Amino acid sequence: MSERISGIAASAGIAIAKAFVLQNPELTIERKSITDSASEIERFEAAISVSKDELSVIKEKANKELGEDKAAIFAAHLLVLSDPELVDAVKQKIENEKVNAEAAMDDVSSMFINMFEQMDNEYMKERAADIRDVSKRVLAHLLNVTFTTPASISEEVVILAEDLTPSDTAQLNRNFVKGFATDIGGRTSHSAIMSRSMEIPAVVGTKTITEKVENGVTVIIDGLDGHVIVNPSQDEIATYQEKQKQYQQQKEEWAKLVNEKTFSSDSVQVELAANIGTPADIKGVLENGAEGVGLYRTEFLYMGRDQLPTEEEQFKAYSEVLEKMEGKPVVIRTLDIGGDKELPYLNLPKELNPFLGFRAIRLCLEEQEIFRTQLRALLRASSFGNLKIMFPMIATLGEFRAAKGILLEEKEKLVSEGTKVSESIEVGIMVEIPSTAVMADTFAKEVDFFSIGTNDLIQYTMAADRMNEQVSYLYQPYNPAILRLVKMVIDAAHKEGKWAGMCGEMAGDPIAIPILLGLGLDEFSMSATSVLPARSQILGLSKEKISAHIDHILQMDTMEDVIKFAEENFK
Amino acid sequence: MSERISGIAASAGIAIAKAFVLQNPELTIERKSITDSASEIERFEAAISVSKDELSVIKEKANKELGEDKAAIFAAHLLVLSDPELVDAVKQKIENEKVNAEAAMDDVSSMFINMFEQMDNEYMKERAADIRDVSKRVLAHLLNVTFTTPASISEEVVILAEDLTPSDTAQLNRNFVKGFATDIGGRTSHSAIMSRSMEIPAVVGTKTITEKVENGVTVIIDGLDGHVIVNPSQDEIATYQEKQKQYQQQKEEWAKLVNEKTFSSDSVQVELAANIGTPADIKGVLENGAEGVGLYRTEFLYMGRDQLPTEEEQFKAYSEVLEKMEGKPVVIRTLDIGGDKELPYLNLPKELNPFLGFRAIRLCLEEQEIFRTQLRALLRASSFGNLKIMFPMIATLGEFRAAKGILLEEKEKLVSEGTKVSESIEVGIMVEIPSTAVMADTFAKEVDFFSIGTNDLIQYTMAADRMNEQVSYLYQPYNPAILRLVKMVIDAAHKEGKWAGMCGEMAGDPIAIPILLGLGLDEFSMSATSVLPARSQILGLSKEKISAHIDHILQMDTMEDVIKFAEENFK
Repeated sequence: MSERISGIAASAGIAIAKAFVLQNPELTIERKSITDSASEIERFEAAISVSKDELSVIKEKANKELGEDKAAIFAAHLLVLSDPELVDAVKQKIENEKVNAEAAMDDVSSMFINMFEQMDNEYMKERAADIRDVSKRVLAHLLNVTFTTPASISEEVVILAEDLTPSDTAQLNRNFVKGFATDIGGRTSHSAIMSRSMEIPAVVGTKTITEKVENGVTVIIDGLDGHVIVNPSQDEIATYQEKQKQYQQQKEEWAKLVNEKTFSSDSVQVELAANIGTPADIKGVLENGAEGVGLYRTEFLYMGRDQLPTEEEQFKAYSEVLEKMEGKPVVIRTLDIGGDKELPYLNLPKELNPFLGFRAIRLCLEEQEIFRTQLRALLRASSFGNLKIMFPMIATLGEFRAAKGILLEEKEKLVSEGTKVSESIEVGIMVEIPSTAVMADTFAKEVDFFSIGTNDLIQYTMAADRMNEQVSYLYQPYNPAILRLVKMVIDAAHKEGKWAGMCGEMAGDPIAIPILLGLGLDEFSMSATSVLPARSQILGLSKEKISAHIDHILQMDTMEDVIKFAEENFK
Repeated sequence: MSERISGIAASAGIAIAKAFVLQNPELTIERKSITDSASEIERFEAAISVSKDELSVIKEKANKELGEDKAAIFAAHLLVLSDPELVDAVKQKIENEKVNAEAAMDDVSSMFINMFEQMDNEYMKERAADIRDVSKRVLAHLLNVTFTTPASISEEVVILAEDLTPSDTAQLNRNFVKGFATDIGGRTSHSAIMSRSMEIPAVVGTKTITEKVENGVTVIIDGLDGHVIVNPSQDEIATYQEKQKQYQQQKEEWAKLVNEKTFSSDSVQVELAANIGTPADIKGVLENGAEGVGLYRTEFLYMGRDQLPTEEEQFKAYSEVLEKMEGKPVVIRTLDIGGDKELPYLNLPKELNPFLGFRAIRLCLEEQEIFRTQLRALLRASSFGNLKIMFPMIATLGEFRAAKGILLEEKEKLVSEGTKVSESIEVGIMVEIPSTAVMADTFAKEVDFFSIGTNDLIQYTMAADRMNEQVSYLYQPYNPAILRLVKMVIDAAHKEGKWAGMCGEMAGDPIAIPILLGLGLDEFSMSATSVLPARSQILGLSKEKISAHIDHILQMDTMEDVIKFAEENFK
């Protein structure tokens, strides 16, 4: 008898293969008092050293077999093990608290993991996954435990795991690994993000998959609907093979749209752009037919290092992106960091509510040297393409004026030094704070564009930390309050002849897309892999017909009403 | 030569007297490793025991000389010293980390202080002040340091202190202490709150007053404008005596309004209510001529104890308040707690962003037994007066429906048990989350009233933790975004024939009052001591004239523009 286990669709597609269950090593940590801290520190240093050797070997292997970008993850892991912040903290804990190395390592890494996990973007979360991963390796050595790695796989399988670590995913060989399913995680967890960028079908958050399935059992991963069939019948296999074929055909249809612009069925044009984190992401942007970069998160440049990036390093990254995009629009967001000790070298104070804290533009207006360096790099890069500069976390018009004032000062300095600066740089803002949405009409007179950041906008509008599971039910993109704010922003932009985009998760969501089109959104920025399905979806939608329902939708009482209506009417 | 030192006006009035500088004991804590933890714990226990004896004596003295409510603070301090959470944590720290008692006490109390200080209401902040105070006493005994107390004062003085602790203020003898000024603190710090409730002129946050002024120097405290004159000339003294006289006359004018209703100059009636925390506060409510209780924060009932209050205890408190208010409206807010380990016995998880976390109605809908007990107590008390029930932190209509559903279930049960329940209880909500303000029109169809909680509404709308100094510039009550949301709420209420009130700090603010009147606010709930000045102010305002400016104000760009306009036009 087959069994159906539900989860969250993390990456589209169907995979059918035998299960390879990736066992987590048993790392039970006993907290012990020790007396000889010197020899305990030695034991810890030995574990670090062995882990480093091991990682160097894996890194070489990954480099040869999987390519440079996958090997990069192990370089990051090696960096973690060389990070004095972490290593010294463990040693100090052993020394001061007289605890064993296992407990000290576990305490310190948990602290860092918590810190990074709660952060507002995917890169930070990946940093947490890195630390968890490295920490496991060190603990395994301290405890003398070995663990299986996906590198040993040599036949076609689907991987089932509690969760996939960055080093697991970096070792996945696409020739053998057809899909995967995990117990934990959501659409934005590390393994979900990786599955989409590798285009491997995946289902996450099944809760029980590793418990219920044994090695070698046949499994179907349905990454379209978000479930797993364990031990399927021949009929079921045939059904899913058909579904797989249809999905393949659909993908081929989508591929035909790669060089097209995006029009609704009633010929209204919108722009589909992609979100990126590094210049390396441009490849995927172009392959997936995005018409621009709607959000370049510059935080990555500042991370995983022990000092600020220089103007020159930044200039190189920005101009590379602009050049590769060949005149297509590129929205670069200035630094959105802080509110937590994300960048150890900045020494920011610990905050009680970091999401309501000293971050992004708030920090940049205070730490002006950091901000000015970035702005100079951006201005210098501007002549390489079609640059638009975007300020994050703007809450008041005063902040925007201050930020733009600094930008103009730096521009003037550069021009007077004889540096070429584009004369057509648009300067806009993220709309992610309720006050800014409510005041969009006054902002629209001064900004060149808006980009709505739904993740934060929803979180603040509902007063609910979306990372906090106990209130995650309040993360409601379809709550009419959110849609009303989105409408205010779009209408305000249009009234002043400006454009309004969206760069939050919502922009690529098939349920949201029709509503956003109906509200008049001009630009949708999403994961590169969502661009073609979105373009295909919009082709089949009539903006006029949807617009006729918008007033009705905005008068609805609850999110549930909105979803029901959208599903019934905008298919 | 006289010197003028600026600060924050914390309590109105003028005081002129010699300075009594309250020296802080020198409590320099050296962190030492110890070997004999048993004897260190003994030393700690001895300090606790001496502190308890001392507090018992002060408590008796306070009881006799200052009355029962001031003595209550020392009962609270004695409770802190008996609290196993704190005491055991210190002992464990000594034991596990082998540190001296001073360092352990300092670490543990700092942790608790930070926790409570960051909380969302005055009672919690007072709890932090209690712990700081008690901790000082214990540390002084550990370090063998003595310190001066205000109890020794026997002539007319103004007190100058870094900050006043709860035990300092409880020992203030109104016959001798004419006013005070502190180095630190803001309008909502413990000493500021106490100064208003004692009606002693006070200026806080002067930064340097204790540094600049010696004992015995003559000082003028101007609690109206928020400054201190050190060593004033005879002319200055005369000027301030005149100002003092005028203020006294103004107070006498205000006192005549105590039994009046509140009308604008063009005869529009509004209601001025008071915020309370315990039944004992009703005395002040009635003395200050409030027309009702606009916010009874029930949290106090749940605090400073080791288990939940029973239905009976709650019934007693609620019915006492209702009875004493003799049919005047009393809005009782259901439990607004959580988001931090505020109630140790609830064992709530630690959250990364408690202000965006699991608190208030979110917790009550989950922990229904706590909620149902409170609702039953409220329903049973309802026949003693004019009860209105208010749910806090409502973000969606679904939450309101769920909460009201539970209320109706409990009502039905009580009625079927034969208990008398009022048939005219209004059920409303706090509007303190942006989504609820934006959706006020849909809420207005189902709730009986709104009460706008500005402290939280501002914090979420601006995405800025108001306790975080680095972003406190974003706590902007006059930001047009806030005023627009307030208008949405008031208009939505009126369209459905409901009333809209405000129970945040803004409702009692002389700059805000004209604007709120112009926006059509029906009920203003504030500190009891602000009621008469507010009534007097409204008497002189024409609602019609102000209303004519409202559209213009709502179109302004920034908070600064609004303040400027209000100061120029609504004086």
